[in-house]
Formats: sequence, structure tokens, C-alpha cells
Amino acid sequence: MTVAGDWRQRLGVFLESTAVVRVITVLILFNAVTLGIETSPSVMDAYGPWLKAIDSAILAVFVVEIGLKILVEGRRFWRSGWNWFDFIIVGIALVPASGEFSVLRAFRVLRLLRLISLIPSMRWVVGGFLAAIPPMSTVVLLILLVFYVFAVLTTKLFGFDQERFATLGASLFTLLQIMTMDGWSDVVRPVMESHPYALVVILPFIIITSFAVLNLFIGILTNALHTQAVADTPVDDRLTVLVDEVRALKGEVAALRAALPPERPPPG
Amino acid sequence: MTVAGDWRQRLGVFLESTAVVRVITVLILFNAVTLGIETSPSVMDAYGPWLKAIDSAILAVFVVEIGLKILVEGRRFWRSGWNWFDFIIVGIALVPASGEFSVLRAFRVLRLLRLISLIPSMRWVVGGFLAAIPPMSTVVLLILLVFYVFAVLTTKLFGFDQERFATLGASLFTLLQIMTMDGWSDVVRPVMESHPYALVVILPFIIITSFAVLNLFIGILTNALHTQAVADTPVDDRLTVLVDEVRALKGEVAALRAALPPERPPPG
Amino acid sequence: MTVAGDWRQRLGVFLESTAVVRVITVLILFNAVTLGIETSPSVMDAYGPWLKAIDSAILAVFVVEIGLKILVEGRRFWRSGWNWFDFIIVGIALVPASGEFSVLRAFRVLRLLRLISLIPSMRWVVGGFLAAIPPMSTVVLLILLVFYVFAVLTTKLFGFDQERFATLGASLFTLLQIMTMDGWSDVVRPVMESHPYALVVILPFIIITSFAVLNLFIGILTNALHTQAVADTPVDDRLTVLVDEVRALKGEVAALRAALPPERPPPG
Amino acid sequence: MTVAGDWRQRLGVFLESTAVVRVITVLILFNAVTLGIETSPSVMDAYGPWLKAIDSAILAVFVVEIGLKILVEGRRFWRSGWNWFDFIIVGIALVPASGEFSVLRAFRVLRLLRLISLIPSMRWVVGGFLAAIPPMSTVVLLILLVFYVFAVLTTKLFGFDQERFATLGASLFTLLQIMTMDGWSDVVRPVMESHPYALVVILPFIIITSFAVLNLFIGILTNALHTQAVADTPVDDRLTVLVDEVRALKGEVAALRAALPPERPPPG
Repeated sequence: MTVAGDWRQRLGVFLESTAVVRVITVLILFNAVTLGIETSPSVMDAYGPWLKAIDSAILAVFVVEIGLKILVEGRRFWRSGWNWFDFIIVGIALVPASGEFSVLRAFRVLRLLRLISLIPSMRWVVGGFLAAIPPMSTVVLLILLVFYVFAVLTTKLFGFDQERFATLGASLFTLLQIMTMDGWSDVVRPVMESHPYALVVILPFIIITSFAVLNLFIGILTNALHTQAVADTPVDDRLTVLVDEVRALKGEVAALRAALPPERPPPG
Repeated sequence: MTVAGDWRQRLGVFLESTAVVRVITVLILFNAVTLGIETSPSVMDAYGPWLKAIDSAILAVFVVEIGLKILVEGRRFWRSGWNWFDFIIVGIALVPASGEFSVLRAFRVLRLLRLISLIPSMRWVVGGFLAAIPPMSTVVLLILLVFYVFAVLTTKLFGFDQERFATLGASLFTLLQIMTMDGWSDVVRPVMESHPYALVVILPFIIITSFAVLNLFIGILTNALHTQAVADTPVDDRLTVLVDEVRALKGEVAALRAALPPERPPPG
Repeated sequence: MTVAGDWRQRLGVFLESTAVVRVITVLILFNAVTLGIETSPSVMDAYGPWLKAIDSAILAVFVVEIGLKILVEGRRFWRSGWNWFDFIIVGIALVPASGEFSVLRAFRVLRLLRLISLIPSMRWVVGGFLAAIPPMSTVVLLILLVFYVFAVLTTKLFGFDQERFATLGASLFTLLQIMTMDGWSDVVRPVMESHPYALVVILPFIIITSFAVLNLFIGILTNALHTQAVADTPVDDRLTVLVDEVRALKGEVAALRAALPPERPPPG
Repeated sequence: MTVAGDWRQRLGVFLESTAVVRVITVLILFNAVTLGIETSPSVMDAYGPWLKAIDSAILAVFVVEIGLKILVEGRRFWRSGWNWFDFIIVGIALVPASGEFSVLRAFRVLRLLRLISLIPSMRWVVGGFLAAIPPMSTVVLLILLVFYVFAVLTTKLFGFDQERFATLGASLFTLLQIMTMDGWSDVVRPVMESHPYALVVILPFIIITSFAVLNLFIGILTNALHTQAVADTPVDDRLTVLVDEVRALKGEVAALRAALPPERPPPG
């Protein structure tokens, strides 16, 4: 092992040591407090520069930490989705937040989500979320298709409702509102005054999307139940024992047969 | 095989080839874009004729495709529900959209739903939805019965509320709103001012329909879980092995017995 | 068997014959239509007396049917909950609907619910609902207790809100609204303006009742899944076969042993 | 056993006797009625002193009961969470309810929750609730983190909306409202007028929190199903029988083998 390799290895061990992880965790929590305080204009008037300085210092630590990790791990760094996650949410804070990008300043707070990549149990829960997404893709595509079709349909049919169905975008938003059952009757009631049969369009939409969401839910649930069932069926162990016992028994009986006089002819 | 039969078979293979399915898929997606753009009045003013020409061209392709399918498959075509589905949603676009049928123009967008019949995974998901319907029919009928009874009841009791319970239709709509819990308190609060005991009517309705919907949901869920359980119980395989082993063992023991001196009298 | 007994038996068979059940079903459906039409004032002005006559005629048939059933079944009639159900909803229509009981006229429509007791599959579904209630009683009592405690609490704390929390009854209604998440933010936001810590009272209420309702739901679901699991475990049959086979095997081996020379001494 | 120990033991048996538990239950129910009546100002004007006297008397009984329990059980008393529960909710009523603590008077009603610690089935249900909490802690922490991050984000981005996103507290409340889908469209629609891309922030929040709540729900459900599955698998008994039978069979075969002439050499 070369000197350089040795140096890298030690640094890698150091970066993943409990002490460093704890320091980073404390910094994130502290940064959470300062970012929260920054939302108060009166506090910003009084201590603005101090808060910004603390923020920059913490950001610097994060940048150094990730820089060192890249140095140590090299190409391996980019193979982990969580490293990409850290890299991007820290990177957002480095974009010069002026001019048209000024809105990005607000997104600095995403940095607090590093807690997820730091704490294994959170990483595990989020990994569970993400693993549930691919099997849902067909149903999600189906929902998007139904949304689009009904958005075009309602824009053409109910476009006279200037606020809710005037454009394709407005219709998409209104349909999202209807799907979540949030004030759907307030949307449909005025439309039904001029178009009494509006419910013939809206009700199938509600039923189809409810059904599709239910399907998503059942898919995730059966998957979770299945995973658990395979993992810890209490029946398993005894069945394995049984199979072993019966096989041993078979061996015994075979040996028994071999022990009998073989030359005697069968009686049948 | 006759020349005509041969020609039909080749056309059938061609129509179901990956290339044709891809072309149709791309046409549907392209049509989705043009139909979406058509909802914008300003774009229609500028490019209306072009968009309509594209739409007619794509429709023509669909009509030809379905026509050829009917030619090739003959009576067999009408045995598939998905073919009926395609036939109807393409057929809607051919109805002369003028006069009292002008509203049908808006329904041309349903054509995009052909994506469902084209993509097998979507067809499978929708098939799953439809398969879940028949076992729910009793509960659905029960919900409809409860709805009707409460609609007559509330129309008679709360008909003074001109906007919400004046007619049977208005009551049905309002009860649908109450069932989905969307602003139900805004409906019931004013009624309770004059009829303090209105809740004695509304609360049972909410509880019964919630219970019935929950029942629907549990029915679909247990069905899904059952289907999965039967499909992939990990217990299955080992039990089958066990049954085989025990039967083999029985054969062994029977053979063993046969190998013993048969003439000796039983000791009992 | 006496002549009287014979007469009763024949009448009982007649009352439960498919023909009679069909006639009653058709009468209920026809009555559903007339009761629905009666909600329209203009139709009532024109055909009111006719509709009332039809209604009375159908009611008379129901009364006769139930009277004959009581005659035939005697005490046995009162042992079935469904008979009580029919008796009460037909009985309501016989209460003189004048003076202070006039509101009972509206409840005549409950008669349509006889469809449930007539159609076996509906009776089965409703029976399933009712069977789910007893195991839920503790959770329901807990919800009622939490409701009462929070109603007293919110009446005392937020009684200044004249519309929503002025009396115990108003608080109970508002808490029901909050529990169903229907416009809860519109209730809490104004209260929080004067009592910023109102959420410390409301949030636990939302969490506790959501949890309790979830518990109800899980209770019903696990019960349904359990019932199904016991009813149709595919594992069952093979296990039963296995136990039988192994027992038969044991008999074989015992017979085998008996067939061997008994006088030879054991080798150990 | 000393005289003092004997006296304590008898008192302990007496305090847990059915009679005492019933008296306490009746007192709680009676107190529930008086506390409910106290919310009516007109009744308080007429019978206020009487109601307060009854309340004090019942409170005195509770204080004596708990005091005696502490006397009897000593340190053991503090080991039960339910005893702490009783101690605290009775203790609240003893805080002098004047001056800045006057709001605590309203919390006297929490005393009714003693019903939970008195009735075993309720204690069991609440125990089930509490047992479900620890496994949810990671998901709950994740939800809190996401809430905080989006609260800072929306305060910075949509702070111009004076009523809904002006301060961190207002944003937290509004996000809670959005998560429960209660009037979320009324919140987002006005914001989208000036910031058309507001949905890019709000929609991920809705999806993430819905997913997390679904995850909570599935966690509790699979846990409940697992507990039940382990408790009462109908497969269990027969498998145990099978294992026993096969073992007995093995013994039989071993005995059989031993009974055969041991000196004969194996044929293979």
C-alpha cells in the first residue's frame, strides 16, 4: 500500500467516524435553528450579518466534507444515490443567489435534508419509499393519462368558467382539487347550473382516479405485507424440520429394507 | 390455405407488428399534444386549420387501422372488449359534430385512451380494476338504495333549503357531497338552525355510507391479498415436497412388508 | 297434523315462494318510483290523490303480508331481527301522520329498505356490517369519551366563539367537523388569533381520534382477513392429507413390526 | 407478617375490590354529567354553588383514593404508567385555579379520562395505541423534518401572503392544513396567481407527506396483522401434530430395525 493510499484510507475512516457524523448532525440541527430564525424580519434587522456568517461557516464545513469525500472515494463517490443527494442540496447553496436566481436562496434550507442521508434509519425509510415507486409506474402513468384527457375535455366543455376551467393548466389544477375531494362540490355546483349533466363527466373522473389511487395503495400494502410474510412466516421452521425428519425416516426405512433377506421372491 | 386467407393472415401479422404498434403509439402521443394545443384560443386563431388537418389525418389512420382489423379478424374482432373500446372511442370522432351533437367534438379527446388498449401493462391494470367490480355489486346496490331513500327523506324534511335539498336531484348531489365529507358541516349547520335534530338523519347516513365504502375497500383489498397469497405462498412448495416424500415412504414401507415372510400368523 | 296446522304450513310455503317474493320486490321498486315522484310539488298538484292511493294500496299489501307471517310463524316471527326490521319500518307508515307526528310521513320512505331483508345477498352484506360492530364497542366508547371531554374543554376555553363553541352541543358538532377534517382550519384559525395555543388542544384531539378511527378500521380489516384466511387457506387441505397419510404410515409400520418374529431379544 | 403489613394488604385488596371500582366508575360518570351541566351559564347562575360542591366532593374522593393507593403500594405505585396518569389528571384539579393558572380550571374535565385507567378493555386498547408509537418514530421524525424544511421554504417564497405564510408558525399551520387536504386549493390558488410555479413546491410536499402518512398506516397495519397471524394461525396445530406423528414414526422404525437380525451383513 502506497503512502498516498494510506493517507486516503485514514481520511475515509475519519470522515465516517462517529465523532465526525455527530459534529455534522449537530451542525445541521444548529443550522436548522438559524435558518428558522432568519425567517423573522425583526431578528434579521438586528442580527442579520451574524446569522449569515454562521450560515456561510456551516456551509463551508459541508463543502469541505463533501470535497474530502470525493477526494477519498474518487469514482466510487458517484455510485451512491445518497452522495448525489448530498452533492446537489449542498451545491444549490453555492449558486450565486442574485438576479434571476435569487429565489434559489430560499432553497438553501433543503440542506437540512442531509439529516436523512446521515441517519441510517431515515435512509432506510426513504429507501423503502423509493422502492415502492417502480411497481406503481403503470398506475401513475394511467392517472396522468386520465388527468390529461379530462383536462382537455373539461377545458372544452366548461371553459366558460373563467376561474377554474379557462385553460388547460387551470383545468389540471381544478381536477387535482376534485381528485383530492377538496371543495369539489363548490366547483361542480356552479357548473351544473348551466350544464346540468356536468356530473356525468366529473363523477367518472372521481371514481376512476379514486379507484386508481386505491390501487396504488393496495399495491404498496400487499407488497409490504408480502415482504414481511416471506421474512418471518412462523410456519417455515417447523416445515423445514418436518421435511428433514421425513427424509431421515426414508433413509431409515431404506436401510431397514436392505437389512432384510434380499433373495426371497415377492409374494404378489 | 387460399390466397385470400393468406393475404388476411399476413395483414393481421403486420397490424400487430411492433413497428405498427409503435407508429400508432407515437400518433396518439402527437395527437395528445395537438388536442392540448387546440384548447388555447390564441393558438387556434393562428394555426387552427393546420391543427384540424393534422387531427383529421390521425383520425383517418385510426379509422383505417380499425377497418383493416375488422377485415382481418371478422367476427372474432367483436369478441374482445378492448376492440369494442377502440371502435367506440374512434367512432365518437366520426359523428358529425354539428347542431345538437356539437358537444361531442370535445369527446374526441377520449381517443387518447387508446393508449390503454395498446400498452399491455395498462390493459392489465385496467383489467384488474374491472375484475374488482362484480364482487362489489351488492354493496354498490346497497349504497344506491341508501342514497335514494335518504334523498327522498331529506327532500321532504329539508326541502325549505332551496339550494341544497329543494328537489330529489339536488338532494342526491348534496348527499354525495356529504358522503365525501366535502363541506358537509357547511351543509348541515344552517339546516340545524331550524331543525336541531337534522343530525339524527345526516349522521346515520354518513356512518352507513362510510361503512359501506370501507366494506368495498376491504373487499377489494382482501381479494387482492388472497390472489397474491394463492399465487406465491412460500409454504406451498415444501408442503408439496412433504406430501410426495410421505407417499414415497408409504410405498417403501409397503414394499418392506411384502418382503417379509407372509405365512407367519399375526401375534394378536 | 291437524287441519289448522296444515293450513298454516301451506300459507307459510306460499309466503316464501319465489312468486310472492318477486311480487313484493316489484311493489317495493314501484313504490320507490311513486315516493320519488311525490317529492315534486308540481306533480303532486296534478296527480297527488292518485299517488297517495297507490301508496296506501302498496302499504296495505305489506301490512297483510306481515300480518299473515305473524299468523303463520307465531312466536317464531319475533326471533328474527329481520322480521322486527320489517315490522318497524312498515309500522312507521301506520302512525297517524298528523299534528306533532306529521314529520313521520317523510319516514314512510324507509319502507324501501325492505329490499334489504328480501334479497339474501344484501341481508348477508348488512349482517356482515352488524357483526363488525360488537368488537368495535370499546374503541367506539373511547371515541365518545374523548369527544365528551374535549367538548366540555373547548366550550370552557373557546366559548367566546359564539357560533362554534358556545354550548356543549355546538362544541360536539364542531369537534365532529374537526375529526372529519372538513374545514377544520377555518374553525381553528380564528380561534388561534385570540388563543395562539388553541392548537395544543385541537391537535391532540385530531391525532387521538384519527388514531382511534384507524384502529377501528384495522380491527374490521384484520377480522375480515382472518375470517377469509380460516375459510379458504389453500394450505389446509394438503396438511389434512399429510396428517392422514402419516397416520396410515404409522399403522403400516406397526403392522410390519407385528409381523416380525416377536420372541427375538433386542440387541441393545 | 407484621400488623402494619397486614393492614396495608387488606386496604390494597379493598381498593381493588369490584365494589370500590364500581363506586369510582359511578362517581366519574356522575361527575361527567355535572361537568357537562356546568358549561351552561343559565344553570350555573341557578345551581352553581351546588355543582361546585359536588365537584369538590368527588375530587376529594379521588384524592383520598389515590393517596391511599400510594400509602399501600409505596414505591411500586410509581412503576405503573397508569398510576402516573391518574396522579397527574387528578393533580391538575388541585392547582389553585386563579390568576394566570385560571385556564387550568377547564382542564379539570380531563379527570373523566380516569375511566380509561379503570376499565381494563379501554386500558388494553390505549395500550395498543401506545405500543404502535415507537416503531413509527423514524417516520414521525421524517415528517417533522419535512414540515420544518417546507415551512422555512414557504415562508421565504410566499411570505407576501400575510395571512398564511407570513411567519414560520403561520406556514407550519398552513402546511398542516395542506397535508390534511382541508381547503388546500383555496390556499394555493391565490398564491399561484403571482407565483405560477408554487405548485412545484406544494405538490412534492403533498406527495411526500401523503406517502409518509401512508407508510405510518401500513406500518401499524402490518404490525397488527403480524401480531394476529402469530397468535392464531390455524395451520399451527396440525403442523405440531404432524411433527409429533413423524417423530413417533421414526421411533417405531428404529425399534423395527433393532428387532431385525443385526448380524446379517449389508448387501451393497
